[in-house]
Amino acid sequence: MDKNLNKLCVHTITTKPWEIEESSEAFSAAGVGGITVWRQALEGRNAVHTGERLRKDGLEVVALCRGGFFPSSSEKQRQLNIEDNLLALEEAAAIGAPLVVLVCGAEPTQPLAQSRDQIRAGIETLLPRAEDLNVKLAIEPLHPMYADTRSAINTMAQANDMAEAIDSALVGVAVDVYHLWWDPDLEKELYRCGKNNNLLAFHICDWKFPVEDILNDRGLMGEGCINVPEIRSWVEKAGFDGFNEVEIFSDRYWSMDQKDFLDKIIHAYQHHS
Amino acid sequence: MDKNLNKLCVHTITTKPWEIEESSEAFSAAGVGGITVWRQALEGRNAVHTGERLRKDGLEVVALCRGGFFPSSSEKQRQLNIEDNLLALEEAAAIGAPLVVLVCGAEPTQPLAQSRDQIRAGIETLLPRAEDLNVKLAIEPLHPMYADTRSAINTMAQANDMAEAIDSALVGVAVDVYHLWWDPDLEKELYRCGKNNNLLAFHICDWKFPVEDILNDRGLMGEGCINVPEIRSWVEKAGFDGFNEVEIFSDRYWSMDQKDFLDKIIHAYQHHS
Repeated sequence: MDKNLNKLCVHTITTKPWEIEESSEAFSAAGVGGITVWRQALEGRNAVHTGERLRKDGLEVVALCRGGFFPSSSEKQRQLNIEDNLLALEEAAAIGAPLVVLVCGAEPTQPLAQSRDQIRAGIETLLPRAEDLNVKLAIEPLHPMYADTRSAINTMAQANDMAEAIDSALVGVAVDVYHLWWDPDLEKELYRCGKNNNLLAFHICDWKFPVEDILNDRGLMGEGCINVPEIRSWVEKAGFDGFNEVEIFSDRYWSMDQKDFLDKIIHAYQHHS
Repeated sequence: MDKNLNKLCVHTITTKPWEIEESSEAFSAAGVGGITVWRQALEGRNAVHTGERLRKDGLEVVALCRGGFFPSSSEKQRQLNIEDNLLALEEAAAIGAPLVVLVCGAEPTQPLAQSRDQIRAGIETLLPRAEDLNVKLAIEPLHPMYADTRSAINTMAQANDMAEAIDSALVGVAVDVYHLWWDPDLEKELYRCGKNNNLLAFHICDWKFPVEDILNDRGLMGEGCINVPEIRSWVEKAGFDGFNEVEIFSDRYWSMDQKDFLDKIIHAYQHHS
């Protein structure tokens, strides 16, 4: 029997060729329950009106992607990064998203530990405004192949450590199977995350092999070597009952008809996740 | 002051456009102390004579690359893999290499844990012959971006676990900065490795950013974000006093004059490692 689509969320970046209004209409018509909005999809729009439009189409606004990129060797740049994150919080509040996903950043000219200190300081600086706006922040551990410039947080344990050190009800973790499927401690660390009420989001896709592009060659669930159903079962056992968010960057899929791609997403969600 | 080159070893794959005899002559002329031989460099040659030739040029034969690739969903294929590894042991003995480096393999259609079981079984099957020939086996943990098809052992802790479980004086770990620089437990796990006499080899290069090719875009030490001197200091503190092996796969460097490239390697070794 097909799974119902109430808990399926699709990221606007997944159907990048569509304007957000086209995505909203198509997701809604297909019965998809939620949408996660990438900031570039809001360009030139009134965020409040866009949020209303999404809800009017029957979609739940699951999260805003993305904040983060805190580290820099320049203090001035770190301050600019904070300002951009404050803007992301405002945008999340405006569209009615309860969560901003953080790709935390890394500065290749400094040690990873120093980047992590700057990430922690950055998140802590955001907390008062996040509290005012009632918007949560989800630390997304990124695959170690992105440790050079995209994130100094590369395992589930590191994300848990950071969330627990910050120790705020507003800060947790976004789990993405693409980044973490190889992590030998994933199951154990997911339970730790859930136990501490830090499991805030769950992103799915697949790891195709061979990898043709380090950024934009993600696969649909079932196309690669990730056991998505098993990881999903761990996430649910950890107490998570939120959306399954399909986040796929793929030159291959972006070049095809997006309606056909959405059909494939729904099929993959129902049969391989 | 320039470091002397006694402890510098270069892999034949690093200067792939050269025949092994050309590499041997050039390394020797430059004062390089050691050579690690990739099996394809032996093609069409008598391995015993090649080993003699390398030693006559004044080089120490540090290791043979590479055995491994144990896992498969087919039992017949796993047996073929064992036979190929037995051949690698013979080749190592023939050229006088005390060590075979293992890229352990992974079968994307089965769980990583199952691939690890097959890796352990494979290595254990090789032990009697390794003992006869007095050739050691070094488990090389590979970066998690290779967990799909190249290795189910992706952290220093996993390599230590495997070596300790097999518990043979012939089995240890090969440490490569490219694969492990991001590993949050690297320093701690290096000391554990050394304490158990399992630290058998040390490979150096750098992680360029952005990565242009997932396989063949490694950088020279100093070109990327890896703190090679720091990791080298940990490796030495762990008790390792063997060679620093330069292992670089790079379409960019393979396309240049290899003598100029060797000069660059030596400069990078002396100033950035």
